[in-house]
Amino acid sequence: MFGLVLDFELSNKPKYIQLYEAIKSEIESGRLSKNEKLPSVRQLIGLLGVSKATVENAYQQLMVEGYIESRNKSGYYVGDFEFGLMTQKAYSPNPNPPKASRPKRFNTDDAEESAFQFGEWKKAVNRVLEYETKSLLSYGEVQGESALRHEIAQFVHQSRGVKCAPDQIVIGAGIQYLFSMIAICFRNTTQKMAFEYPGFTKGMFVFEDLGYEMARIPVEKDGINVTALEDSGAKMVYVSPSHQYPTGSIMTIKKRLQLLEWARKNDGLIIEDDYDSLLRYEGYPVPALQGLGEGAHVIYMGSFSKLLMPALRISFMILPKQLMERFAVLLPRYSQSVSKIDQLALAHYMAEGAFERHIRRIKKIYGRKNQLLVEAFKTIPHPGIALVGSSSGLHVTLSFDARIDLKGVTYECAELGIVLESVAGEQLGRYVVFSYSGIPDHEMEMVVEKLVRVTQRHWHP
Amino acid sequence: MFGLVLDFELSNKPKYIQLYEAIKSEIESGRLSKNEKLPSVRQLIGLLGVSKATVENAYQQLMVEGYIESRNKSGYYVGDFEFGLMTQKAYSPNPNPPKASRPKRFNTDDAEESAFQFGEWKKAVNRVLEYETKSLLSYGEVQGESALRHEIAQFVHQSRGVKCAPDQIVIGAGIQYLFSMIAICFRNTTQKMAFEYPGFTKGMFVFEDLGYEMARIPVEKDGINVTALEDSGAKMVYVSPSHQYPTGSIMTIKKRLQLLEWARKNDGLIIEDDYDSLLRYEGYPVPALQGLGEGAHVIYMGSFSKLLMPALRISFMILPKQLMERFAVLLPRYSQSVSKIDQLALAHYMAEGAFERHIRRIKKIYGRKNQLLVEAFKTIPHPGIALVGSSSGLHVTLSFDARIDLKGVTYECAELGIVLESVAGEQLGRYVVFSYSGIPDHEMEMVVEKLVRVTQRHWHP
Repeated sequence: MFGLVLDFELSNKPKYIQLYEAIKSEIESGRLSKNEKLPSVRQLIGLLGVSKATVENAYQQLMVEGYIESRNKSGYYVGDFEFGLMTQKAYSPNPNPPKASRPKRFNTDDAEESAFQFGEWKKAVNRVLEYETKSLLSYGEVQGESALRHEIAQFVHQSRGVKCAPDQIVIGAGIQYLFSMIAICFRNTTQKMAFEYPGFTKGMFVFEDLGYEMARIPVEKDGINVTALEDSGAKMVYVSPSHQYPTGSIMTIKKRLQLLEWARKNDGLIIEDDYDSLLRYEGYPVPALQGLGEGAHVIYMGSFSKLLMPALRISFMILPKQLMERFAVLLPRYSQSVSKIDQLALAHYMAEGAFERHIRRIKKIYGRKNQLLVEAFKTIPHPGIALVGSSSGLHVTLSFDARIDLKGVTYECAELGIVLESVAGEQLGRYVVFSYSGIPDHEMEMVVEKLVRVTQRHWHP
Repeated sequence: MFGLVLDFELSNKPKYIQLYEAIKSEIESGRLSKNEKLPSVRQLIGLLGVSKATVENAYQQLMVEGYIESRNKSGYYVGDFEFGLMTQKAYSPNPNPPKASRPKRFNTDDAEESAFQFGEWKKAVNRVLEYETKSLLSYGEVQGESALRHEIAQFVHQSRGVKCAPDQIVIGAGIQYLFSMIAICFRNTTQKMAFEYPGFTKGMFVFEDLGYEMARIPVEKDGINVTALEDSGAKMVYVSPSHQYPTGSIMTIKKRLQLLEWARKNDGLIIEDDYDSLLRYEGYPVPALQGLGEGAHVIYMGSFSKLLMPALRISFMILPKQLMERFAVLLPRYSQSVSKIDQLALAHYMAEGAFERHIRRIKKIYGRKNQLLVEAFKTIPHPGIALVGSSSGLHVTLSFDARIDLKGVTYECAELGIVLESVAGEQLGRYVVFSYSGIPDHEMEMVVEKLVRVTQRHWHP
């Protein structure tokens, strides 16, 4: 039964937010039960004496978050799910429900809520929208705004020893987008692309989809197998030397030099993805290949999605000077793919030091989480599961005993909001990546316990 | 000589903005002349008694806008350009200087400054950054946020008669990005792509770069030549029926039905770019092909860059139901390319009616500009230039007498901020597109006069 009573005077929040929060809490507490019909917009206007916009905005927000749904002309209903600690299931008419619309407390691969100070980002965005409006009415620079490229050049130099001028930098809406630029640029030169394997599956997709033959090169404890790379005959290779995804291995300096030597000898190209090098919790950060090789033969790539927030789509690549001419033909064929507002806001955010402060903050937050996770695995017996590569990043890799049904584990965990990602693409391997960035500190042990419990139910007979 | 005196107490603006504005005005007025060296950051701190951040922010802003430049370790200098009404030349060490960094009053292809009410956009963005922060810490939906897809579905239905469900919509960072998805999706089925010609050059680039053979189909007064399309053997074709770019022709209903018939008979696919259909100033808007064909055989495309502001990179495509399954395999291979903040902000902006109000406003603004332009061409004699297709959009197409050196005209106009775009790609044709959205009303006649004057200097002997 819907018996909502609201005194809007008690809060300063906009009315629609108050209404949204009230209905949400009715649902979460179970006072509104699953599939229950909600009052129509008109009824709610009458009931609460609010405007149409207030009701519509509140309903829209609840729909966005998946709490309610509008069913074919018959009105609004509470979604088809039950709330319970960590066990709520998503209502999914669709076998692959979009994450964002699931009602949930957290998914383990979200960012930690306290990790991002929205205030500083808001300040940067508003500064652009207040003082740089004129520049927002024209199209952006093809390679990205120069203000941002200046900041990035400075930042990667200071934090990672990367050597470049701002005009070597290309900004794009995600690593995949930049990959497609590289793939297009070289498709008349080579049809073969080498990737660390297991590795960055979505990266492989781009090259595969653009017609490249894929050479999957094994990753060893100290990084990619350079001999296997040499034997493959490929001229381009993707590596993540500072923290290999998903094995977590770190490329030794010996191997780094070997790989650079391979590039020099073969006129090869190394695509270095440095995606979470700044989140190392032990020892010194490993220097970037790009700096080690004086910038030749290496395209260095970075992204702000992991470091800043997943909602932003800003990545960048740094081209070797030797390739500038080649890309100079290609780049003007494509319009810049990142909003100028976001680019200028990020430039301000970096110039003001907010980005550096942010990195320091999340390193602390995620470092602590990493430690809690490692401790939880020490405390809780976990037969059949081994923890590998745990000293950096926002995820750990787990390896499972061959007698465990990994598919079953992954599926059941997903329903609990525990995100395990298989690393070998279609066929499920023995390894999964477990993201823990979204787990609140005090629930770390509980989540690991749940994971272990689920696993024990899936031993093959 | 640098003799700036500033009383920061006289204004409420941040100090760095005051300093920025003061130096800018010194440059614009000529009191600081071109190539003049500016005081160092340290000197300015001493001179004005401000903080380092204030000086650095002001200098950064001036650099972003191209007023000053930092020269190789020797400090900051005023740029190498002169200010004067409409005649300032850009300092360009680089043969293709990025537009955004040119010091200028306007380029004729900017958006009109009063056309966009930044207040409403700011409100929408801040709402997201205040109340939806939790959702910004997780990755977005592959096809784009459902809140935005709902708004778009409603909007294209009401304004353009397009029929679709939100789950047929895919959001992406620009039309080119969405083109690449289409090209990838079909590359194993067909290697040929047909385009209206002359037409959307940057669109052709995408298909060419992904290995498609290009069939260039002539555009007639009533739209694409369907017989030539049939003869080409292509199964996919790009058209802009409601306002062909660049000829400005509008596809007649007869031709629309012919084209749909072609698609039905050949199991063909029509990519309908409806990019500025809402900016028609005469008569009724032409209905979309998509609605006419009941959604089959047509991918409908729209973009918010032209309609809202160029700084935003949000486009969308609407897939026919028949193709959903095919794209369902491809789409999850790619991460969403548009910032979730922008998507949610746009959803709010549309839900609140701000977008509709905006469209009404710019229709008025640009309609008036269009009229002023047409009148200017009536008033001013313009031998050798003809105006074609002038009843919609933000640009007109000009056709030039064969005895005029078009390359020379285009080049000289560019230096005056008059943006003429050749339409045939590499080889300069007889047609150019003249964008007028950035010309203030009271300068329309002057700009047309300048254009005519430049042209008269370039008759071949």
